[in-house]
Amino acid sequence: MSAITYTVAELADRFGLTFSGDGTHVIEGVGTLAGAGPSQLSFLSNSKYTAQLTATRAGVVVVREENLADCPGAALVARDPYVAYAQIAALFERLPAAPPGIHPSAVIAAGARVSGSASIGPCCVIENGAVIEDGAILGPHCIIGEDCTVGAQSRLVARVTLVTRVTLGRRVLVHPGAVIGSDGFGLAFDRSASDHGSWIKLPQLGGVRIGDDCEIGANTTIDRGALDDTVLEEDVRLDNQIQIAHNVHVGAHTAMAGCAAVAGSAKIGRYCMIGGNAGVLGHLELADRVTITAKSLVTHSIREPGEYSSGVPLQDNRQWRKNAARFKHLDEYARRLSALEKDSNNE
Amino acid sequence: MSAITYTVAELADRFGLTFSGDGTHVIEGVGTLAGAGPSQLSFLSNSKYTAQLTATRAGVVVVREENLADCPGAALVARDPYVAYAQIAALFERLPAAPPGIHPSAVIAAGARVSGSASIGPCCVIENGAVIEDGAILGPHCIIGEDCTVGAQSRLVARVTLVTRVTLGRRVLVHPGAVIGSDGFGLAFDRSASDHGSWIKLPQLGGVRIGDDCEIGANTTIDRGALDDTVLEEDVRLDNQIQIAHNVHVGAHTAMAGCAAVAGSAKIGRYCMIGGNAGVLGHLELADRVTITAKSLVTHSIREPGEYSSGVPLQDNRQWRKNAARFKHLDEYARRLSALEKDSNNE
Amino acid sequence: MSAITYTVAELADRFGLTFSGDGTHVIEGVGTLAGAGPSQLSFLSNSKYTAQLTATRAGVVVVREENLADCPGAALVARDPYVAYAQIAALFERLPAAPPGIHPSAVIAAGARVSGSASIGPCCVIENGAVIEDGAILGPHCIIGEDCTVGAQSRLVARVTLVTRVTLGRRVLVHPGAVIGSDGFGLAFDRSASDHGSWIKLPQLGGVRIGDDCEIGANTTIDRGALDDTVLEEDVRLDNQIQIAHNVHVGAHTAMAGCAAVAGSAKIGRYCMIGGNAGVLGHLELADRVTITAKSLVTHSIREPGEYSSGVPLQDNRQWRKNAARFKHLDEYARRLSALEKDSNNE
Repeated sequence: MSAITYTVAELADRFGLTFSGDGTHVIEGVGTLAGAGPSQLSFLSNSKYTAQLTATRAGVVVVREENLADCPGAALVARDPYVAYAQIAALFERLPAAPPGIHPSAVIAAGARVSGSASIGPCCVIENGAVIEDGAILGPHCIIGEDCTVGAQSRLVARVTLVTRVTLGRRVLVHPGAVIGSDGFGLAFDRSASDHGSWIKLPQLGGVRIGDDCEIGANTTIDRGALDDTVLEEDVRLDNQIQIAHNVHVGAHTAMAGCAAVAGSAKIGRYCMIGGNAGVLGHLELADRVTITAKSLVTHSIREPGEYSSGVPLQDNRQWRKNAARFKHLDEYARRLSALEKDSNNE
Repeated sequence: MSAITYTVAELADRFGLTFSGDGTHVIEGVGTLAGAGPSQLSFLSNSKYTAQLTATRAGVVVVREENLADCPGAALVARDPYVAYAQIAALFERLPAAPPGIHPSAVIAAGARVSGSASIGPCCVIENGAVIEDGAILGPHCIIGEDCTVGAQSRLVARVTLVTRVTLGRRVLVHPGAVIGSDGFGLAFDRSASDHGSWIKLPQLGGVRIGDDCEIGANTTIDRGALDDTVLEEDVRLDNQIQIAHNVHVGAHTAMAGCAAVAGSAKIGRYCMIGGNAGVLGHLELADRVTITAKSLVTHSIREPGEYSSGVPLQDNRQWRKNAARFKHLDEYARRLSALEKDSNNE
Repeated sequence: MSAITYTVAELADRFGLTFSGDGTHVIEGVGTLAGAGPSQLSFLSNSKYTAQLTATRAGVVVVREENLADCPGAALVARDPYVAYAQIAALFERLPAAPPGIHPSAVIAAGARVSGSASIGPCCVIENGAVIEDGAILGPHCIIGEDCTVGAQSRLVARVTLVTRVTLGRRVLVHPGAVIGSDGFGLAFDRSASDHGSWIKLPQLGGVRIGDDCEIGANTTIDRGALDDTVLEEDVRLDNQIQIAHNVHVGAHTAMAGCAAVAGSAKIGRYCMIGGNAGVLGHLELADRVTITAKSLVTHSIREPGEYSSGVPLQDNRQWRKNAARFKHLDEYARRLSALEKDSNNE
């Protein structure tokens, strides 16, 4: 396997950056400021690591203009070094080979349509009415249920399940264990049933539409809609183990960190950031550009952009126990405080 | 594929409802009040949507007697329109074909017993001692481990794993990615081990028993018991990504929303409702008809039916930070308040 | 299948315990104090169950010296009965047969290296550059991606995915649905992109290193590092549905309960205990021997061993609502309290 190499000048040219130092220097990979060697590229995005910059052995560093002076060797100057680094680093990523064609162990229904340029890995199962578009890559063990579409150039890394009526746009990336299009959790309680009543399932007749350039993390679940569809607009980025309930609508460019959960029919705006293990209750609406911090629970709709939080701070367990016990009497304390104030004013 | 159709009169007859309007009107599907067209049925369950009822184009609407006057067209009258709608909508659901028989790519151990009326999908693996009863449907990629039983008419949608000693009742529905019967998390800390001690695993020798008519969501995990079994009684409904630890016992008709978690040996009553991402600590008992709101943590047993909560409200991050910082001193504030009251009384 | 049997004396001899009563008594399994019969062994670890000990029908009970007098029959005396029980119970566990060799339905790349003593189950997929060491067991449907190593005697129960650049040590146990080595969630926001900006993915070029004797629960996800590796040292024990983000480092002998989550680049010490659904924010450091209680969120680094908590207690919803509403004004209350004190002092 031959190494992937670029000269500093080639990288500058490719991404429209300027460089200082030796443009012929050859780069074979990327690394951290602390760990990169002379054949590697690194970057400085956060000025608090400037000390690491001055000490780095990296062959070239992507920096802002203002940090150029602190660069010990070659530099590439970018308005946003993190973005430029992301683009350059992608050149050095080695994705698993995915030759066009269908692995002999895959099971393709007669009524499925698979593009000749798609790559279908071992043990994939593709049901009737499914469409796999040009250049799509299905790693091993993917299951594409009836009436699902995998858009052009999308990649299902491995063991992804699309249950039914799921449409992925173009360049969608889905990680292992994700389940998209499973039944929404819709139940009616039938009081007249034997015993003291029991549950009746509502059939989940909608689908899921996922826009271009979305990313869906490992073991994330996205249920299909009850009647209408569950929707992710383009460029939505979901981390691992996220739960998206039926009929949720997520606006474009919104990102959610691991273990976040959105209950049924909630509508999340564009450019939102939902922190790790944060939750949004059903039927709420969040405006564009709302940020929810980790583990917060959204219990009412949010009309204004901004950052929102709930929760209480971590403390040593002994101290915390005392404070937590007091929480149970907060309402009483507030009343007693008001009473004291009244007394005080009346004196 | 011919359409599924019913007349309004046929639907009334089938579910014991009365109708008003044209009984010969043909219905081909269901939809929301806002979206349904003349060939579709809709329903009104919550009176706050009465405005949508008067404007609906639906061919027929399931309503309570009291809403009949607001129906612009044909109506089916039900005591509980949501339940009636659920029953009717099920008629229009198209489930994937599941012909009896075993897909040639499935791997069935010699010591497994599979009913001739069961449907076993591609790449399923069925181990020795497993039993698949009449009419059970295993979608693609299900793994049925040793000594597991899938009850009659149960459906494992796809990629479900039953590890060992798992018994599913009849008509159990399990969604993709669910893992049932995995090892409980049982560890003993051996202080005498090298270093400063290390963990010893407790073998998990029990199983899992799941009652009739249960539903298990996508990527939900249910561990098998350490000695006795983990048990879900009948008609328990679990949403996605729920974690049920070893030796938990869940009473009949209890429902849990996504990402709820129940720790080892907890006993949940019948007809409980556990909110999304709520947690129950180990060895606790919850009475029948207990409701836990989303993201609450149950830290003590609950003897009385009712609704229980923990957590603090969401606020703008700036305001929240101020209040959260004060939480760390709640105990001190309570003492200072009491001291002030004492002073005030002594004056 | 012949029964596994040991006499009381054999068990004492094997684990260096002393016994009292009939050493020739034959034991065929283990059970709880309440449930075990004469052919079964039980144990008493927690003195609060002493009443069960006096009433037990178990053939032999593992007890501390101090509980020997309460034993109705034969006893094995151990310094730590729970540890001794764990060791003994393991003798009675029947693991599924895993004969060396490769199941014909498995798909092994030409460039993979599989030990002759390893057992590769149905439908496993092993990619180029993967190494399966001696005595390793892969249950059905495991996917071992490029450049992954499964250490000697490790067991992947079923349907485990190692994505790429994952190294498991020896005797690692991984439960179904776990995904190890998936892409870390690394994104740069490109403000210059069309519209109002969009996300650019950072390639995740690192791997995952998992030490000897680790256990990884069902549907747990562990992302690979962005540049350096994500690391679990030896004897780390992860329950189900845990999320470990990229570049996290977990010290040896640390255990995490179900649904815990650790954000990127956090460093957890040795011998830590992370409670169920607890969270640790990114880039934080936790010292050795830190315990975090269930559902707490760690928002700052912890330098001292000890137990830490956040959250508020569960209450009846009506009471809780009143207290929770007051939380939004805590800062104001604290100010008003101080003002009153000032008034009081000035009088």
